[in-house]
Order: sequence, then structure tokens, then C-alpha cells
Amino acid sequence: MYPFKDDDCDYARGQWYVAAWSDEVSRTPLERWILGEPVVLYRTETGLPVALDGRCPHRNFPMSKGVLRGDDLECGYHGITFAPDGTCVRIPSQAAIPSGCKLRAYPLIEKWKLLWIWTGEPDKADPALIPDHEEIRLEKEGWLATQGFTVMLNSRYQLLNENLMDISHLSYLHAGTIGTQAVAGTDVQIIDGPRFLRGTRRISNDSITGFFAEVLGYNGNIDREVLIDYYAPGLHVAWEIFMKPGTIGTLDTLGTDGNPNVLGMYRVHHMVTPATRDKTNYFIAYSRTFARDDTSVTDTMTSVFTSVIMQDVEASEAIEQLLAKREAAPTELLLRADGHSVRGRRKLEALMQQERAQA
Amino acid sequence: MYPFKDDDCDYARGQWYVAAWSDEVSRTPLERWILGEPVVLYRTETGLPVALDGRCPHRNFPMSKGVLRGDDLECGYHGITFAPDGTCVRIPSQAAIPSGCKLRAYPLIEKWKLLWIWTGEPDKADPALIPDHEEIRLEKEGWLATQGFTVMLNSRYQLLNENLMDISHLSYLHAGTIGTQAVAGTDVQIIDGPRFLRGTRRISNDSITGFFAEVLGYNGNIDREVLIDYYAPGLHVAWEIFMKPGTIGTLDTLGTDGNPNVLGMYRVHHMVTPATRDKTNYFIAYSRTFARDDTSVTDTMTSVFTSVIMQDVEASEAIEQLLAKREAAPTELLLRADGHSVRGRRKLEALMQQERAQA
Amino acid sequence: MYPFKDDDCDYARGQWYVAAWSDEVSRTPLERWILGEPVVLYRTETGLPVALDGRCPHRNFPMSKGVLRGDDLECGYHGITFAPDGTCVRIPSQAAIPSGCKLRAYPLIEKWKLLWIWTGEPDKADPALIPDHEEIRLEKEGWLATQGFTVMLNSRYQLLNENLMDISHLSYLHAGTIGTQAVAGTDVQIIDGPRFLRGTRRISNDSITGFFAEVLGYNGNIDREVLIDYYAPGLHVAWEIFMKPGTIGTLDTLGTDGNPNVLGMYRVHHMVTPATRDKTNYFIAYSRTFARDDTSVTDTMTSVFTSVIMQDVEASEAIEQLLAKREAAPTELLLRADGHSVRGRRKLEALMQQERAQA
Repeated sequence: MYPFKDDDCDYARGQWYVAAWSDEVSRTPLERWILGEPVVLYRTETGLPVALDGRCPHRNFPMSKGVLRGDDLECGYHGITFAPDGTCVRIPSQAAIPSGCKLRAYPLIEKWKLLWIWTGEPDKADPALIPDHEEIRLEKEGWLATQGFTVMLNSRYQLLNENLMDISHLSYLHAGTIGTQAVAGTDVQIIDGPRFLRGTRRISNDSITGFFAEVLGYNGNIDREVLIDYYAPGLHVAWEIFMKPGTIGTLDTLGTDGNPNVLGMYRVHHMVTPATRDKTNYFIAYSRTFARDDTSVTDTMTSVFTSVIMQDVEASEAIEQLLAKREAAPTELLLRADGHSVRGRRKLEALMQQERAQA
Repeated sequence: MYPFKDDDCDYARGQWYVAAWSDEVSRTPLERWILGEPVVLYRTETGLPVALDGRCPHRNFPMSKGVLRGDDLECGYHGITFAPDGTCVRIPSQAAIPSGCKLRAYPLIEKWKLLWIWTGEPDKADPALIPDHEEIRLEKEGWLATQGFTVMLNSRYQLLNENLMDISHLSYLHAGTIGTQAVAGTDVQIIDGPRFLRGTRRISNDSITGFFAEVLGYNGNIDREVLIDYYAPGLHVAWEIFMKPGTIGTLDTLGTDGNPNVLGMYRVHHMVTPATRDKTNYFIAYSRTFARDDTSVTDTMTSVFTSVIMQDVEASEAIEQLLAKREAAPTELLLRADGHSVRGRRKLEALMQQERAQA
Repeated sequence: MYPFKDDDCDYARGQWYVAAWSDEVSRTPLERWILGEPVVLYRTETGLPVALDGRCPHRNFPMSKGVLRGDDLECGYHGITFAPDGTCVRIPSQAAIPSGCKLRAYPLIEKWKLLWIWTGEPDKADPALIPDHEEIRLEKEGWLATQGFTVMLNSRYQLLNENLMDISHLSYLHAGTIGTQAVAGTDVQIIDGPRFLRGTRRISNDSITGFFAEVLGYNGNIDREVLIDYYAPGLHVAWEIFMKPGTIGTLDTLGTDGNPNVLGMYRVHHMVTPATRDKTNYFIAYSRTFARDDTSVTDTMTSVFTSVIMQDVEASEAIEQLLAKREAAPTELLLRADGHSVRGRRKLEALMQQERAQA
């Protein structure tokens, strides 16, 4: 499937994705489409989150229309009841439970305000593969992390993934919001790991916008580092470090927390989970080091980032619509600035190929 | 096509189906989709109902947009005119009528308030294959039959057919309406014929609901027999016999009419006609032996059954939507309680295979 | 694709089509789908019209969402900028411009109020192949030509093309408007050229409607000639000559302008441009010799022709919907009266086959 080379490439399955916000999942079953399958999400009486196949194996009825009986989920059609581990505990019309009568149970881990789902073989679900929440600054001393919003994106997920790794569109798609020539024009340094890709841009002696000048309490020029971290398959952390001039280059990114030359930092967390071949669940969170008690700063940042993100959403959907309506097969022309996002694409393709080789 | 095994199985064609209510068909042509084809229905000047191919063979224009000229139907595009038997009687632009210029005429029989259409070879249209209207109690002394309503169901017809033969969903899908553990928990007896399938459940000494106690004028426990009769391909008659306690087992179902130990009976007639691969025409009628002069009883029963039927409609549509959105091929897991509906499915599949063997 | 024999026949590409009205194209980029592809239309600073591929080759973003920089169009996603000839003049993120980075530029010619686009190989774009605007009376002394309206037709273009060449539907589809038995009942004379097809009908001593009697200032019977000229691939000119009785047959069609026996003439220009396989851009213009200063005559004629044209639109869309919903493959039954439109179809098929042979 475009933009992957291989037409059979659809989803990387042996992976952790964000399934939902914690507060979306309750004692009322919720249906969410993930990797082409319906998933039903709910909580046990003690509050543990559960993710099961959203389709009753008996007659294909949506399990999200079922009823909770204690910790178990009873299908709304024939009352077949499944435990949180997916085993069938009751078939009202018969005593014997056939071995095939069970729901796939998805490993699910709650961290901060997120529910991470493992869409591969359950016994391979290693929680250590979930991006470290301290490292990504969703749970770290000195940072305020806030829940953003959710978009049901009407495009294939990879259009969004590549948009997020692509700085070169800032000055154009986001001309009216965050687009600055400074970022797009600065060379990117790439840091590459097996499941990780960082692009970092260091800008010396740049001006600061009025809003940030005010919340950082700093006038005059600054140094800035702008980073985009991709944790395959579906997390992108876009972040920025504001520094006193002359600091950049003297400071390792790892040493920025608590450093007196750092004026402030914020991160935007983009969590991209394929729904179906042309729909995507897109979750957004924020964190920042500055003005943590000032909710008006939260409001202003939310407002700015929402505008920017909705431009990315509209771009991905415009491309999806063009691809769907156009009668010729999709093509593309890669430029040097695509090196970063295509490197991310290759990383995801490698994960898919590796999975297929193991299957 | 799921749930049939054979992917080429779509419709049983050499069969009678309900095409419409009598009062839907008039001197204004009506289009109805049946077995993947448009059909146009109208009446001659003397009131005889006519069913013709709803597509002009000339240029594929819908015949339902045509105009009646006496008993003949004139195409609204070029005026080609067809008699009720489908022969072309006029081509305005030429005198000679090519032999291929005709409309398929569907044998159509009006019985009670129903129009039955034969969708196979016309010369095989044996009216004796239409379920006997006295036997199904749409036209029988001592019974009041009332026309119900029509649903354009957004699912493949076989999901509904199997829903209707399946008692085991009563306590769950219809929990708030007619669901009782008594029915689902009672063993079914099957009576099987070449085109007929009956499931009957006999319940002794059961309680009676307030509504039926009142209309039957009977307090105290009763015996009940609950039956579902399938007349392949598309009629299901669900019915119930209320009896004085101790009667059940002493009484043959055939001898219930006029028997003093029978307190009352009602039937719900479900008529299922495939429209296209994912749409179904669904007609509902009722008949009953009790309170036949009391229109408020009609209203109450209509209201109860409408709620129940709409739950079945929503279930079939929820499954169709899930099947359409899901990217994997449909599967199912049959249980013992599916024996009844799957026996009905096999009966329909046998009709399709038989037709194909003869073709 | 039906109604063409060959399923691979979709569009005649080496042709001129109407892309837009002159006044639709401005300094704001406009997207129009033509032959299954998005096209972006705009004007340079000096007002020259430009038609480019509406899809950025880089990432499939719609060029119509771009911004004009002088005469060049900058993609709204990454700022890649193209000149009116389609060459890339700037990639913000790199200095070198890959040879594949260009937009297809469509030859575009503005005549009267129309923009004609060439959808084949640019070097074969011979302006002489555009129907002569004097010959079709859009630009001729003694005629008033007026811009009509545009319909985004929800059907394949060939249904409309054949509707327009088919006089035999007048008395039926247009029964309430222009349908007269006189036209459909009169023999057609065909004049045939390599890219041209005329059907002409000559009617002697016919009555005249009140409206035309009034605007022509003539009471009593008239002679009429009714013509439909097809200029392949997509222009149809339907026209009518009103003459004093006894004139017909004595007068060559070419000699009608300025002839004292001719009471008046009008033409309706139907311009049919395929958008996608099931959508069509349909442009309508009018011209007339009579009452050229009386705008109320324009209004009345517009009102009458709009009604007629919308009946053709509804017919084409009704057929498209039936074809899409019906599960069997489309068939048709050609009659003698189809000779004219099928001759036009063959002409278009021949153009397609010729193009394929040359490719």
C-alpha cells in the first residue's frame, strides 16, 4: 500500500500503539478500530483496563454492544460471555465450551493517561518496548503533561507519520501559524536507532515570538534546538529547547533538564494508530517545563498547536482524497528533505518485513 | 457469499418471494429491487398487478420512471412500450420490433394483502409452491390478520433469515422486550420437510404476562407452545399457543383451532426478500385469534413486535457494517443452538445448488 | 467501459475539451477533474490562462491548494514552485532540481468565453482541431452568444454524449417541454466527416409556438430545420432554423445567415468533458440571431433550455445509478434510431483506437 513499496505492507503488528485515553475507557464498552480490526475496551470492577477482539466469534456481532457482568463481557446477541483474558466463561445455550470459542485478548498497559495496546503475538508483548514515559517527558519531575485531543483522521496513517517527520513543510503548510524559514532552512542532524529516529536542528541567535518571550520572561535573542523524535511504529515527539544565546553546542540534549542556561522546553506528543486502510486514530498530548501553574498558558499553547495539527490533518486528508479519486496508480518524487521521513518509513517497513519473516 | 459456504451462492432464484404489499402497487409504477435486479410493479386498468423488469433493454433507463398507457408501460426515455406480459407493443421510432425487445415479466400472484413474485423461469412458476395462506393463518376463519410494516434492511438477507430461526438470542438481544429464559432454555423439537422447517418449544405451567392475561381473560399459570416455521426461501412464521395448564402434550398443533383448552394464539409473519447483496426487503404481518374486534389490542401488539423487530434489524445491520469494515474474511463459530438456523441455511443452499444443477 | 465495446476504452486523450469558462479562472487556483486526473487552472499576472497537473509530483498534494507567486504556482505543502510551463523553478529545501520534478502542462487556448484544454501529447496540440468558433456561431456577426451554466453530472460522459445525439427521446423525456412528435417523426439526414457528424431534420409547414411567434414577429405556419452537430470528442451544437413556408429544400444550410426567408436561428452548445469514470463536466452556451437586444428573450430561452437540459441530466444519472446498483453486467438493445448516436460512439471509439495504435 502506498507509500510503502510492497503492496502487501499494511500494518506493523508486533508493536505497541496507543489505543485510547485512560478516561475514554470505563464500565461502558467502547469500540475502537485498530489495524483493520474492531477492538472493544472496558474496565473491570477494580478498574483494570481490558482490550478484547470487538467481534464475537460466534456470529460477528460487535462486542461493544454487549453488557458487562462483573468483569466479564456478555455478547448482546446470544449472551456468550468472555472473561478479561478472552476465555469464554459461559454459553447460555450449552454447557460445553468449544475450544475455538474465545476472544483474542490484547495486552494492554496503562501509563500516564494512555492505554498502550500490543497488536502482535501476546507472548511477545514486552512492556520495555513502550517508549519510556520519563524519557518522553509525559511523566517527569519538572514537567507538566496535559492531555490534548483526538482526531479520527480520514487518511492512511503513513501520510501522517511522514508529515510529522518532515520539517520542510513548516514554512508552507503552516505559513500562518508556526512556519518559520529558520527551521526549514537549518541543517538537520540525524540520530538513528533500531526503533528510534531523531532529527535535530540547532539555531543560534534567533528571535523569539512575543508569546514565548512573555511566558519565559526573557527578551532578546535566543538559541533554539528543535527536535522531532520518532519512536516506531507510531509515536512522534516534537520538541523545542529555548536557551540563552551562546548556549547551543555547549549543551548535550540529555543535560537540558534543570540547566540554568535553558529558559524552557515543551514537547508535543503525536500518537498515530492505524484504524483501517484509510482511517487513523490520532491522539495528541503536550508537556512543558515553564509556567506550569498558569492554565492560560496551557490554553494558548493548545490553541496554537490545534491550529497547526488541523493543517496537518487537512493535508493528509486532501492527499488521501486525491489518491482515491485519481484513476492512475500513485507515484511520488522523493527529495533530499524527504530523507528523514523516508528513513522513518524504511524503519517501519523493516519492522513489517521482520514480522513476516518470523511468521 | 458469507454465511453460505460457496462464494458464488447469492440468491435462490426459482422461488416465490413477497414483492410488495397490495396497497403499494397502483397506477403509479413502483420500483423495487429484488435479487439484484430492479423490478417495476403496477396495476392494469382492471386492477391486475404486473411485475416487469425495471430496466428498459434499450438504454438501461429505469422503467419505474415510465408512464402507463392503458395497461401498457411506456418507457420515459424513448417511449418504447411494453404490455403486461413484457412483449413490446410499440417502438415510436420504428415499425419493426426486434425479437430481443421485451421485458422479463415476472409471474405475480396476489393473495391476501401480499404480492408474491416468482424469480425463476416463468414456466416453472407453480402457485402451489406459495405457502398456503390458510395454513399460515393469513386467511382463515377465526383469525384476524393485519398488515404490519416494511423495513429496507441494510444487510444481506441471510443474516436476518438466521436471526429469525434462532431462539437462543431472545433472552439477550430482546432482554428488554420479549426475552424470557423459559423459551431459550427449553429444548427444541424440529419438524423437517423439503422446503419447510419447524422448531417447536413446549413449556408447561409457565406464568403469563399481564398484557396477555388481560386480553385472554385468564389469570393463573398456563401451558405455552412457541413455534417458528420456516417456509423456504423467505417466509418465517413465529407463533405462540396459550393453553390451559395440563393441555400441552395432549394436543396436536394441527388441532388447536377451536379447541376449548386453547386460550388464544397469535402469529407474526416475517417475509424476507433479497434486494441486493447487502440490502433486503423485509415485510411484517400479524394474525391472532383473540380480541379480534379490539383495535387497541392490535395497537399494543404492533407496538411490542415493532420494538422486537427493530432490535433484529439493528443486529443484522451491525453485523453487516462490521463485516464490511473489517479487512479480514468473515468467519463464524457454530454452536449447538445454531443447529436450527443452519439447518434452514442448508435447505436454502440445497435449493440454490439444485437450481444450478438444472441450469 | 459500457457503452464502449472495449472495457479498456475510457477516454479519447489526444483531443481538445472545454476545461472551464473564462470567468471561472482567475488568480485563485481552481481544481477541475479532467479524464481521471486533477487539473489546476489559474491566470498569470498578465491574464494568460494556465492549466497544470493538479497533483504535486512530490507528495500528491493538490496543487489547487497552492499559492501564486507572480506567474508561478507554489505547492501549499512544501513550497515547490512551478512555472506556467510546468518546469520547477524552486525547491525550497534544495538547490538542485531533479529532472522528474515538473508538472504536466496542458496546452490551453482561450476562445470566446471558453478555455479549451488539450489532453494528449503537447506537441500534437493543433489549435486547428478546436471547432471553429465562427462556424459554431459563438463568435459571428449577426449572432448573440451567451454563457449558460455548468453541471457536475454524476454519470459517465458517454451516456450524455449519446443522449445529445439522440432526437428520438424528445417526445418522451421532454414531453412537458420541447418534445414534439414532428421532430422525432421526421427522417434524419446524416452528414458525416472524420471528426464531425450532423443529423438534420427538415419539417415543412409546421406550427410555431407562441413564444417563437412573438420573438420572430411572425404568425402562421413555418418551415423548420432542426440540426444536431457533433464535433468529436465533446461538443454538440443543437440548432434550429425558422423559415418562411416553402423555403425548406431551396436553401442550403450554409446560406442561412442573412437570408430574407430565414426568420431566425438559435443554437445550444453542449460541451461535454469527462471528469472521472462516473462524473462529467457539462458546460452549456447559447447563441441566436433574433431579438439580440432583448434580455428578456435571453431569460426565457435560458429558462426553457435549463428545464430540458436538467431532464437529460436526470436521465443520464438515473441510468448511471441503475448500472451501479445492478449486479449483472450492462447490456443494451440498439434500435434504428440509435444509428445516429452509435455512429457518434464509433467515431469516438475510432479516435481512442487510433490513439492507442500510435502509443
